[in-house]
This record gives sequence, C-alpha cells and structure tokens, in this order.
Amino acid sequence: MADLSRLFNPRSIAVIGASRHPGKIGYVILKNLIDYGYNGKLYPVNPEATEILGLKSYKSVLEIPDEVDVAILSIPANKVLDVAEDCGKKGVKFLVVIASGFAEAGNEEGERKLVEIAKKYDMRVLGPNIFGYAYTPSKINATFGPKDLAPGHIAFLTQSGALGIALMGWTIMEELGLSALVSLGNMSDLDVIELSRFLAEDTNTKVIAIYLEGLKPGTGRKFIEEMKQVTAKKPVIVIKAGRSSRGQIAVSSHTGSLAGSGRIYDAAFKQAGILVARTIEEMFDWARAFSLLEIPRGERTVILTNGGGVGVLATDAAEESGIPLIDPSTELKTAIKKAMPWFGSARNPIDLTGQALVENYIEALEILNESPEVDNIILLYCRTAVLDPVELAESISKLKSKFRKPIVAALVGGEDVARAIKILNKNGIPAYPGPERAVKSLAAVLDYKRYLDRKIGRTI
Amino acid sequence: MADLSRLFNPRSIAVIGASRHPGKIGYVILKNLIDYGYNGKLYPVNPEATEILGLKSYKSVLEIPDEVDVAILSIPANKVLDVAEDCGKKGVKFLVVIASGFAEAGNEEGERKLVEIAKKYDMRVLGPNIFGYAYTPSKINATFGPKDLAPGHIAFLTQSGALGIALMGWTIMEELGLSALVSLGNMSDLDVIELSRFLAEDTNTKVIAIYLEGLKPGTGRKFIEEMKQVTAKKPVIVIKAGRSSRGQIAVSSHTGSLAGSGRIYDAAFKQAGILVARTIEEMFDWARAFSLLEIPRGERTVILTNGGGVGVLATDAAEESGIPLIDPSTELKTAIKKAMPWFGSARNPIDLTGQALVENYIEALEILNESPEVDNIILLYCRTAVLDPVELAESISKLKSKFRKPIVAALVGGEDVARAIKILNKNGIPAYPGPERAVKSLAAVLDYKRYLDRKIGRTI
Repeated sequence: MADLSRLFNPRSIAVIGASRHPGKIGYVILKNLIDYGYNGKLYPVNPEATEILGLKSYKSVLEIPDEVDVAILSIPANKVLDVAEDCGKKGVKFLVVIASGFAEAGNEEGERKLVEIAKKYDMRVLGPNIFGYAYTPSKINATFGPKDLAPGHIAFLTQSGALGIALMGWTIMEELGLSALVSLGNMSDLDVIELSRFLAEDTNTKVIAIYLEGLKPGTGRKFIEEMKQVTAKKPVIVIKAGRSSRGQIAVSSHTGSLAGSGRIYDAAFKQAGILVARTIEEMFDWARAFSLLEIPRGERTVILTNGGGVGVLATDAAEESGIPLIDPSTELKTAIKKAMPWFGSARNPIDLTGQALVENYIEALEILNESPEVDNIILLYCRTAVLDPVELAESISKLKSKFRKPIVAALVGGEDVARAIKILNKNGIPAYPGPERAVKSLAAVLDYKRYLDRKIGRTI
Repeated sequence: MADLSRLFNPRSIAVIGASRHPGKIGYVILKNLIDYGYNGKLYPVNPEATEILGLKSYKSVLEIPDEVDVAILSIPANKVLDVAEDCGKKGVKFLVVIASGFAEAGNEEGERKLVEIAKKYDMRVLGPNIFGYAYTPSKINATFGPKDLAPGHIAFLTQSGALGIALMGWTIMEELGLSALVSLGNMSDLDVIELSRFLAEDTNTKVIAIYLEGLKPGTGRKFIEEMKQVTAKKPVIVIKAGRSSRGQIAVSSHTGSLAGSGRIYDAAFKQAGILVARTIEEMFDWARAFSLLEIPRGERTVILTNGGGVGVLATDAAEESGIPLIDPSTELKTAIKKAMPWFGSARNPIDLTGQALVENYIEALEILNESPEVDNIILLYCRTAVLDPVELAESISKLKSKFRKPIVAALVGGEDVARAIKILNKNGIPAYPGPERAVKSLAAVLDYKRYLDRKIGRTI
C-alpha cells in the first residue's frame, strides 16, 4: 500500500503558478492555504514575482532552499511536463496537478508522459483536472473553492469538481465535518482505490463518501478486492453518477471515463461491502451518522417521540429498511411510563405526547440508555408550544457523554428547530429534519454492522 | 357536494372557551385569529369574562347579537354536547371541535351524539380531536399552532395534529405557501373526501397534500370514486402513514382509525389518480412544484447546468422517473452554443461549464423558452466563484413572466445558495437544494399530466 502520509501531512508545500492576481486559481489556492491556517512551510513559485501574499516567491521549484513534500501545479497543461521534471529533480514527493487539458480533452499522450516522469522520480500524482484537495487535521485547504471547511471525520472523494466545490459551502451550512476532501479528476496515478486505502488507516477519518462517475477500464476486479480491505476497516458510501443509459453518455462526454451500467457497478459495490446512496443528500445523511456514531452493539431499536404521526412515519421507514423495533418488556414499559403524561404510550414507538417537556425526554433517554433491551434510539420531536427545541437540543447535548448507545434524531418545525438540529449535530448527535432521513441513516449504519459481522463470521 | 364556503369564508366566528390565560388553547386560537388578521366578526364566548384580548366576550353563544357562521369549541369533551345544542339553536353552520376525548379515546358514544346534534340543526362538524384549521385567503388562522402561515396555493390536510403544527413553522422556513391547513382529527362528520372535493373547486388552491393515517371502515369505495372527481380538477398528493405492519398497529393505538395494509391503499390511490409520496419532504417537494407551475404542454425536457456532475445526477434521476430528455436538433445546438464558453456542451444535459455567468444562463433560458423542441426546463447550478447565486436567482426571477414553460431548479452550495433558493421559490420558480429533488418534482407533475391526458382520452 502506498504511503500517502506526506500528501496529507506535508512538511512543506510549493504552489507552482502562485499568482498575485485575485482572479487567478494560483492566487486562490495559495490564499486558501494561508487563510485556512496550514502551518507547514509554504513556497510560492512564479518566474515573475519575488513576493506573493507576503511570502517569498521563487522563480523555480529548483530554487527552493528546502525539501518539498507536495507541489501544487497551478499552471497551464502545456507547461506541466517541464515543471514535473523540475519537481522530480528537486525530490518532490507528490504532484497535485490542477490543470485540465489532459485525457479528459483527448490529450492521453500528455497524461501518459506526466505519469512517466512521476514514476522516473518516484513521485505520485493527484489529478490532473482537479480543484485540489483538503485535509482538515493538517489545516490544508489546497483548493480553489471557498476558504472554509468544517473539520470532522468524513472523507469525501469526488470525481466531479464543480460538485465538490459547491458542496464545500453546503457541508459547512449543514454541520457536516470533513477530514479530507479530494478532487479525483482523471486519476492518472492516484485513484479512488489508493486514496480510500490510505484513508481507511487514517485515524481522523471515520467514513469515506465517494461521488463516482466511473473507473478506469480493467480496474473493476482490483476495485472490488482492494475496496474489501477498506470496508473491513471503515464504512464506504458511494453515489454512482451515470447509472442510466443517457447518464452514461453524459459521463463519457464529461470526463472520458468508462461509465458502465448501473447494475454492473451495483454488483461490484455489493461485493466490496460498499453502501450505495441514491442521492447526494442521502450519501451525506449516512456519512453524518457514521461520522458521529460508534458502530452499534446490536440492532434492537426504539423510537421515542412527542408526536404520534412522526412516530408512525418512522415506524414505517424502520420496517421498510430492516431495523428491528423491539417490543419493550413490561418492566421497561412500567419504567418508561413514569417519564410521560398518563395518556402517553410506552409501546414502541414510545409516545411522550405533545405535552412532553425536556425532563420527560431526558428521563426517558436515561431509562433507555440503561435498558439491556435497547441497542439504538431514534429520537423524534415535533415543535410544540410547551417544549422549546433549542432547550431540548442543549439538554440532550449536555448528556451526550453519558449515552453509550447510538442516537439518531429527527426534529420537525421551523427556524428554531433548524437551530436545534445544528446544535445536536455539532454535539455529536446526528440530527435530521425528517423522520425518514434519521431512520434510513441508522439503517445504513446497521447494514454496515451486519456486513462486518458476516465478515468476521467468515474469517473465524 | 357540501357547501363549505362559510367554513372557509365565514362572516363571523365564535370562539367558545376563549380564555384570558396565555397558556390556554382558547387564548391561543383567539389570539391567532386576531393577529393573523381575520377581518370578519370575532366573538369570544366565556361564561366568566366580559372582555378577552380587547373583544367583548359573551356568556353563551346564544347571547351573540349576530349570526355565527363558525363556532370553534375550545372546551373540554364533557361540555361539547351541551354547547353543540346551543350552537344549533343559535343557527351556527360549522362546529370546529378542538377537544379530544371522543372516539380516539374509546368515547364513540359521545362522538355519535355530537354528530346527531349537528345533523338535527343542519350543522357540519370538523373534528373532534383537532388543532383547528386555517385558510390564508380569508386570513383565518384558527389553530393553536404558531401565529404565522405563508400564503400560497397548497392545501394541506393532516390526520396528525402534532405533525401539522410542527410543519406550520417548517412551511414558512421553506417558502411553502399554503391556501388551507386543516386538521382532520377523528373525521366524525367532515372527512378528507368532502374537504378535498371542496378544495378542488377552490380557486386559491392548486394542489392538495394529505397526511393520511387511515380511512373510516367501509369508506374505501366512496374514497376512490369521489377522489377521482377531485383529481380530475386538482393534483392530490398523499403520504400514507402506517404502511408497515408495525406502523398499522401504531396508527390504531394512536387514532383508532383503520390502518389497512400499504398495498390496499396504494391500489386505491392509484385508481383515484392520487400521487403517493414516500416522505413528508417528498410530498412538499411535489406540492411546491404543483403550486407554482402550470401543467406542462408536453414532456420533452432539457437539463441546463454549469456543472457536469449535477447534470449527470439529474440525467439519471430523469431517466429513472420517466422524464423524456430530448436530443436537441442541430439548429438548437448551434443557437445554444453561442450562450456558452467554447468548451461547453450543447447536448442534453446542456453544460454551460463552471465559467458560466448570469448572462449565459439568461441567454440559454431565452433560447430554450422560444424553442419548439422543448416543453420543460430543469435548471441546475453549482456554486462557483464567478457566478453569484443570488444574482442568478434575481435575474431569473425578473424574467419569470416571460417564461411560458415550466422550470424547476436545483442549486448546490452554502448559505448564499440557500438564499438564492428562497428567492426563486418566492418568485414562483420551484427550487430545491439537490438535483434529484427537482427532477422528481417535475416527474410528479408529468405523472399527473399523463393521468389527465388518459382521462380525457377515455372521455372522448
């Protein structure tokens, strides 16, 4: 397995093609690296500048009086090969090639030569045709997207640049924390497999989410075998674009990669233990759950609600997605009855009723947390006049460290409920605006748990 | 068909059980009616008050020196029958019975008597066991939920009170405008069928969205036949809670209504031409499209994007949901090519590329609007540095009146993209945060169009 640690934890980064002009990609990347707080050494390279953004600039990478772990090439495609040679001579370890104009535009020859040069000097290549990469534990934002990234435990690999950049702002708004964000581009050298294998060992990453358009021809078997190694350690969620016949055509005109039918990919994903999401929203819903929860000890689940309707919707979604809802024992029912108004229901879904207050929720959660009958809790809330959602979210968040069982939450309501959802997510409790989304996210976690259990079963 | 016009356009409303105490339901309902701006006559009734919230209060409904169209009964169940008698004597036309404690709690006898009294005096009953109702064209918010409601063209009928109240704030946040919001409760008299039939004729309503737990035993055939009359005039979307076996049990313990298997209901919905949504989010996604769009003239659809990835995802979703994507003619391709950078694609999805500016979008939209090859447009946007989403949304909104074809939009990005989505929705262009949601909403509109076409085909 390739050692990519110096790509994600570089001691120094050269930005070749760094620019003084704010409209230029070479300016944005350098500025993002500075502003996001990368604290290794940064070397702008530009033949016409002596200083860029307050940093001493070099005419060539060869002039840098230091080792260079990563070189980011923000230069036109026709200059990439020469600069790659220089980087090789300099002893650079990783080339991050932003430029487009390679295989995706019919220039397979240029791309082949780039990889040859890299091989000759023992360098690895990310790209070309990418918007860069980010790794929050090292405070690296080497993209030309927005400056900010929310740190967290989701590694997101994307074969679409535009989508990747657009989702950067979205993940912040949605309280989705990222460990890594990698633009895959043409995958001339480093590909989704090698990056996933590295991230599977990365202690800062708990889940790998992949937007995939297609694999390189002939890599299907390798993909399955190697991704099995990844899914044995970390959950992997993929959204495969180009599933439909017209989508496949769109993919091949867009990236030049081999699309292949949705069905073939589904079979491969299944063999590799990869979870398949159908929408971007779903992929990140699941990633949120994996990034915040530990793998459950069991599957036995209860629904706790203050509204009958959302309780029923969650029940339907649970049954449809294979989550076993328990029938609480008489003992548990008696205990839980004390946490609710007399007209509540201690069956599953447990209905605290619209009269429920914060203390009812907390008391019920504490009982469920202690109960040996329960492995997982689906917590639902409908906005009522008597229970402030922000207060509820804060109270639950305070108890977070006491809860040993996975909790997923869904809260329905307006602006204050949206704030409460953010509070829960920030405090490590995956929270969603609808019951079905919470339930399906827990279902994905349980699917992965079952996969691991089967794997262990087989090994023994 | 029952004439419910005085329920939704009453000249006067009595709030029986109006209260001076802010914690009481009888206070909240009266206050909501005042604050939301109902401009008919309002009569608080309370045996112990002479004035409530600045209005003269009456000891009994019989003392009101005026006709009363609607009486809202915010009193305990055990007082409802006597007050209903008084209302009958007074000549009240509609009883809106908030109280619980009837059939849902085993008191079928009380509920039967209530309906008997109503029949005797030619009154109709909404409820019991409801949180009230609202009708924005008449500025009526007779609920004990939040004060505000966004006016619009979606009528929402709900058999879950908690969910209905929680969704009031949510619809405001999501820019979902409502014409009516009706809590169905026990449907002792007025039921989902009669309310839908009235709303089908209501010029302020463009789509009816229903959260349904179950129908009364023996009303299945009637439901299908009468709802056919409704769907001939307005699209109806339903989310059926209690589809699963455990969900059915939860429903019967929760409302006492007959749940019935999901499959039986699906067959009935299909026969009646009702669209079935699987989640609350999906129901309102579709309702948003129906409430803002006219029924398309045809099905031929193009995707317009500035990002290849979202274009492919939308293509997959379109093919999966049966939306025919056209192959643009050479003529159309030549025209559209002028609206984009040279490396863009004029195939479908039309890719303006990440370099696209507002003027590229506008020019392309104008060409597509004029083209006889195109019926519908799916407009996609990924946040880029060169194109401000708010500016894009405002420019498109300005042209809204020129566009004769349905447009659905999906915009991916952070906070400013969320603002742009709100702007589009406010200006009548259904907009969503993900490509799949926009596509599936258009698919629902086309499904309904096909249903109407088949219906007309049959009649001829």
